[in-house]
Order: sequence, then structure tokens, then C-alpha cells
Amino acid sequence: MENGGVVNREVEPVSTITIKGILSLMMQNIDEENGKRVISLGMGDPTAYSCFHTTPMAGEAVVDALQSEKFNGYAPTVGLLQTRRAIAEYLSRDIPYKLSPDDVFITSGCTQAIDVSLAMLAYPGANILLPRPGFPIYELCATFRFLEFRYFDLLPEKGWEVDLDSVEALADQNTVAIVIINPGNPCGNVYSYQHLKKIAETANKLKIVVIADEVYGHLAFGANPFVPMGVFGSIVPVLTLGSISKRWIVPGWRLGWFVTSDPSGMFKKPKIVERIKKYFDILGGPATFIQAAVPHIIEHTDEIFFKKTLSILKQTSDLCCELIKDIPCITCPHKPEGSMAVMVKLNLSYLEDISDDIDFCFRLAKEESVIVLPGTAVGLKNWLRITFAADPSSLKEALGRIKSFYQQHAKLTQTN
Amino acid sequence: MENGGVVNREVEPVSTITIKGILSLMMQNIDEENGKRVISLGMGDPTAYSCFHTTPMAGEAVVDALQSEKFNGYAPTVGLLQTRRAIAEYLSRDIPYKLSPDDVFITSGCTQAIDVSLAMLAYPGANILLPRPGFPIYELCATFRFLEFRYFDLLPEKGWEVDLDSVEALADQNTVAIVIINPGNPCGNVYSYQHLKKIAETANKLKIVVIADEVYGHLAFGANPFVPMGVFGSIVPVLTLGSISKRWIVPGWRLGWFVTSDPSGMFKKPKIVERIKKYFDILGGPATFIQAAVPHIIEHTDEIFFKKTLSILKQTSDLCCELIKDIPCITCPHKPEGSMAVMVKLNLSYLEDISDDIDFCFRLAKEESVIVLPGTAVGLKNWLRITFAADPSSLKEALGRIKSFYQQHAKLTQTN
Repeated sequence: MENGGVVNREVEPVSTITIKGILSLMMQNIDEENGKRVISLGMGDPTAYSCFHTTPMAGEAVVDALQSEKFNGYAPTVGLLQTRRAIAEYLSRDIPYKLSPDDVFITSGCTQAIDVSLAMLAYPGANILLPRPGFPIYELCATFRFLEFRYFDLLPEKGWEVDLDSVEALADQNTVAIVIINPGNPCGNVYSYQHLKKIAETANKLKIVVIADEVYGHLAFGANPFVPMGVFGSIVPVLTLGSISKRWIVPGWRLGWFVTSDPSGMFKKPKIVERIKKYFDILGGPATFIQAAVPHIIEHTDEIFFKKTLSILKQTSDLCCELIKDIPCITCPHKPEGSMAVMVKLNLSYLEDISDDIDFCFRLAKEESVIVLPGTAVGLKNWLRITFAADPSSLKEALGRIKSFYQQHAKLTQTN
Repeated sequence: MENGGVVNREVEPVSTITIKGILSLMMQNIDEENGKRVISLGMGDPTAYSCFHTTPMAGEAVVDALQSEKFNGYAPTVGLLQTRRAIAEYLSRDIPYKLSPDDVFITSGCTQAIDVSLAMLAYPGANILLPRPGFPIYELCATFRFLEFRYFDLLPEKGWEVDLDSVEALADQNTVAIVIINPGNPCGNVYSYQHLKKIAETANKLKIVVIADEVYGHLAFGANPFVPMGVFGSIVPVLTLGSISKRWIVPGWRLGWFVTSDPSGMFKKPKIVERIKKYFDILGGPATFIQAAVPHIIEHTDEIFFKKTLSILKQTSDLCCELIKDIPCITCPHKPEGSMAVMVKLNLSYLEDISDDIDFCFRLAKEESVIVLPGTAVGLKNWLRITFAADPSSLKEALGRIKSFYQQHAKLTQTN
């Protein structure tokens, strides 16, 4: 064996598709000579569009913290106390009990919070229940942390609600948790209080924990208000994952949280607390001065800023749905009510020479310089995920080009 | 089994001591009523002392990047291309080949780079060779990543050189790597070109990789200049870990790197590159705007800033050694030539009522409000790690109090 085992060993392939991986392949497929500017509706990062920008106060708070020169040193690995306290208070506003700073651990974005939750629950032979469609970082994390994963379905005809019967059928004595992403990515749905309560009751019955991915928390602009899963923390222990990335439109600041919304105290056992704390010792975590700005940002963000974001998202999601209606080969089974993306079904029978969603997306990138995500990347073959968090003119242009693409590839029998 | 397995399962204790854990216990042991201000010589974070501050240009570069509003979005998970390129060029200055941006992966401080290196080398049954004394994050990472670790000794009487005979005796066919921390933490040593070459040759003979922890890179102020391990990359594949934390005195900015200093291309195999990239997809990583500032910071830092830091470290390390000579119960076997800390041997026979290094440090904290790290925390019982990166007046005060502490606890037979 040569140099370091792993170098010459047969490395186990990590087969999981990643959104960034597939989007980067599609970007490489762009034909730069077609003269069209690239429009990406592929990622949940709206900062590329001028209508989505954070409140100037947030940037000023970070600059102030940096220029104070008080936050160039290490923070405690679990996060600055004032930041943990501010997030505990922020999340406590919407639940029937009070979180303490000890419930809150600061992470490098929600991505790291996902890793923490899976790494902390993993043990040899354990499995976790993931939504389909979902967010593939969960599969990737589970693979690296030696955690088996099993899929339950989200039901498009029921507003992407969880198929609770399939959840009960999947779980066994080695199931540790169920992952719920609400507001939904990739589907743009927002669960009702009643449905969330049923999920909590099912999890309690199965004796599993709920991992509540609320990275899109509060980004709800439809009939259902955003209800944090932590509301049901007395029914079932909840691990709440979140960040300032989406609501404050600063995904690049990498400031998230892992929170034990667990009034019954199951995660408060000394050995478990010690294990979580030691895991944070190896993580790295976000910059101290960004952490230091968070209490000010949470306290001083004007409601008008939030309302403006919701109003633009409502407008762009409506526009997106309208324009989709005009493209025969794709249909939207459930109008988005939250988050920044929607799933649409691809009807291949309308198309002459497109073999599947991946073929559709790669050729769309090449011919029209428009990027959308193939549903396969989030677990649903022959669907597409379209991000509507873009400025209206780009959305119009992009969906216009998708329509042209359809017309170029439409089955002749359909157009006759 | 109840709620999530792990919650009610017997959680495996993580027995590894952490520096932050033990320091925080000692802080709790401070007697606030003794009227003495707390002086910590416990951690490698000099930002608490006014004589150690970063160059103003670095903070301005970060503010500029933030205020440009171009870096609020996600970076590629492996890091911004311009940042990877700037670090590749920075590290290439001191080695006989050129690193490419593809060799460089941006991490959340050197801590995350440690985790990446261990996670990427781990496989069931693999083991890694760690220095004793060392840096306990390696043990903690290895434990969480299911990697066995074995200790080789650093030899105080040989300037803390690696005991290469013990390395050869420890390695077997499942050994994947040896960790070398240079400039040394906790010992303050700087290895010669010749010794580093011998380490590389030994690693090549054993067919293992070298993990070169150079977080204190360039902080060398003695006879030996700092030589990066990557110089010997053609003898053995080197994983270089580093950050801007120490040289630029901004540990809280969390900007580090994991670099394959590997001209023979053993880490360039497609499956290995894919595995590394996918691992970065789950990590979180540092803030985009801090990454964006790095090229400017590297290019525009004045040599005078670096020289000033080295001059202060030389001065404070000399002062520290002089003051130690005046305290009979501790001796310094090797004068520090780099990094920010030194190991001193505790001679318990001079003390009446102190049982070991931990007892010494806890009682010192309580009686004198001075924090130093017990050697047990870094693998050497009845030694102490003293951080000399403090302002001279605090150092004098702290070592004066250690002397008083000695006098209070000195064996009467010694003083008669």
C-alpha cells in the first residue's frame, strides 16, 4: 500500500448528486457564442438580483463590530453568549416556551447545522427519514457520517404534505429522526399548524426526533402563516436549524444555528450536552465579528424590510406561475406560498427529442443560456426546480426563453 | 427505545480533553474576591493584548469587500477562485514548485482544515500518528471520524525534534499519516530543513502522508528559519494546513486553508478530488466577503508589520524565559524560537502540597488569578504550557505571581 492508504486505496465513490455539482456542470454547458446573457434560476441565492439586497443596517452592524477591534479573537466554539441569547429570544417569540442561550449553538450557515444534527444522531446501524423531493446536502451528510437514509414522499396533490403513512411504514427501532423542511425547499409549500402537529404526533409515536430545517423561516406569503416546528416541542424533541441567510438575504455571511427546541430536556443530559459541545470544538464556526453583529441586526431590523421581501417574493412567484401556464410541457401542481423555489412537472410527451429532466436542463442551458435545476437532483425525475427569487424582468426573459425552447422541441403532433 | 435513539441510548463518552474545556474549568475556579485581575497565558489568542493587533489595512480590505455588496452571496464551497489563487501564489513563494488554485481549499480556520484532513484519510481500521505533546483537536477530530491515533514523542532534549525511531516502530500497513506541527505548538520549536527532510524520508519509507500543520507559519524568530513541509512534496505527499489567524492576528475571522502540496499528483486522482469537493459541500466554510478580502491582504501587507510581530514575540519569549529561570519549580528545556507558547517542566519535589500539573494550574487560578495550561491537556503530565504572546507588563505580573505561588507552596526543606 502506498502513501496514506486512502491515496491508493479504492476510494469509495460518493454517489450523491449535489445541487452545486450539477449546476456547475450545466454552467459548463452554456454556449457562450449564442449571444444570450446567462440567467440562473438554479440556486436559492437571490443576491445576484438587485431587487434582493439586505438592509443597510445589517452591513453597518458588521462593520461596527469589526472596527471595534473587540471581535478579532476566538469566540467560544459554541458561539458568543450574546449571539446565542439573541437567537434564543428571537426564536422564543413564536413558541409557547422560552429557549435559553444554552439551547442555541452558532454554526457556519444552515449547512453546518445540518451536519451537526446528523453527526450527533448517527450511530452504527442508525437510519434517518428524508423527504422526497428534498435537499441533497442531507444525503451527502448522512453518507459522510455513516447514517443510512430512507425516503418518505411529499404529496404534490396535497400541497406537498408529508405522506405520514409511508413514514410509519419506513421507521424501525433504528430510526433516529425525520427531516422536515418548512417553508419547503424545493417545493415552495408552507405547512399548516395542523399538519405540523400531526407530524409531531407521528414522530412521538415512532419515538424519533424531528429535525426542523427552517432556513426559509418566515418567508411565507400565502394563506398559511409560518409555524415553527418548535411549537410542538413538548410533543416531540425538535432540532431547529436556521440562519440569517435567507430572511436577511446574506447567504454568504455563513451565520446559522442548531437549536434544541426541547422543553422536556431530552437533549439536556450532561453526556449529550458534552458531546455536542466537543463536536463544536472541531467545526471552525462563523467569524466572531459577524456573530457579534447578530444581536443588533435582530433587534433593529425594520418590519418594512421583511414585508418588502415578502411582497417581492409574492410578486415573482405569481409571475412565475402565470408564465409557466403558458408553457405546455411544464405544469405547477401547487402554487408556491413560501421559500424561493417551486417544483414543476415536466411532460415529456409534449416534446419531440428530450429524453428526461437532465437532458432538458442541459440543452436549455446550451441553447437558451437559462439554468434551472433538474428534479433528479432533488429526488424527483422528470420534474424541474425553478427559483423564482429573481428580478421580474429576468424571470420574464428566462421563462420566455423556456417557452421558445419548448417551441423548438415540441412534438409536431401536438402543434398540428 | 425512546426519541431518536441517541437521546436515550448510552452515549459514548468523548473522553478527549480539550484545551478550551480545561481553560473554562480553570476560569470557573478563579476567586473573584482575591482582588487580582485575571491574566490568561492559556490560549494561543494574542488579540486580548493591545500590543498584538492586525494591520489596519486588513480590516479595511474586509470592510471594502462587504460594502461592495458583491460578496453577500454563496461562494463555491471549496472557496472563491481569487482566494484560492492568492493562497496558491502565497504558498508557492517558499517551495520549489508552483501550487495551482485547484490545490487550495478554503476552510473555516485551521480547525476545519484539520477536520478535513482527518476525515479524508479515515477508513475503517486506519490509524494516524500524532505528536506528544501536541494539539488535542487532532485527537478529538480522530475520535469523531473513527480514526485510531498513536503517539510518537517529541524530544525536549533535542529541541522537541520528532523521535523518528518511535515513528517507525508505531507505523503499520493501516497507518495513513503523520502530523507535524511546525512552528511548534505547544513547544515553541522550529524544525531545521534537515530534520524536516528526515521526516519526509521516513514518511516516504513508511508510505504515509505528512499532515503539516503550519498555522504558525512564518512566526519564527530564532536561529532556524521557517521551512514549509511542502518543500519536500516531491519526497512525500504533504497536506498543508494553515490560516491567516496567527500571522495576521485575526483568529476570529476563521479563514484557513487545506492544501495538497503534492507535485507527484497523488491527491489529483479524480475520485479523490471528487470526494474532497463533496466533503466541502457539507462544511459551511468562511464568509464570502472575508474570502474576497484575502488577495488584497496577502498582496498589500507591509513587511514591517510582520517584522514588528516577530520582534515583539522575540522580546516576550525572551522575557518569559528569563522570568522562568527565577522560579525554581519550573524549568524550560528549550528556549522558544517560534509560535506563541513554550513548554516548561514542573518539578513537584520543590513543592510542599501540589499533587500534579492540574492541581498546580487550578490552585494557581484560584490563588493568583493566573491561567496557564496543564501539560496533561497536551499530552505531557507535570509540564505546563505557557503562552508568551502577551504584553510584557502582563507577562511580568503573571510570572511574578507564579513565583509568589511557588513561595507559598515551596517545600520547607528547600527553603531551609
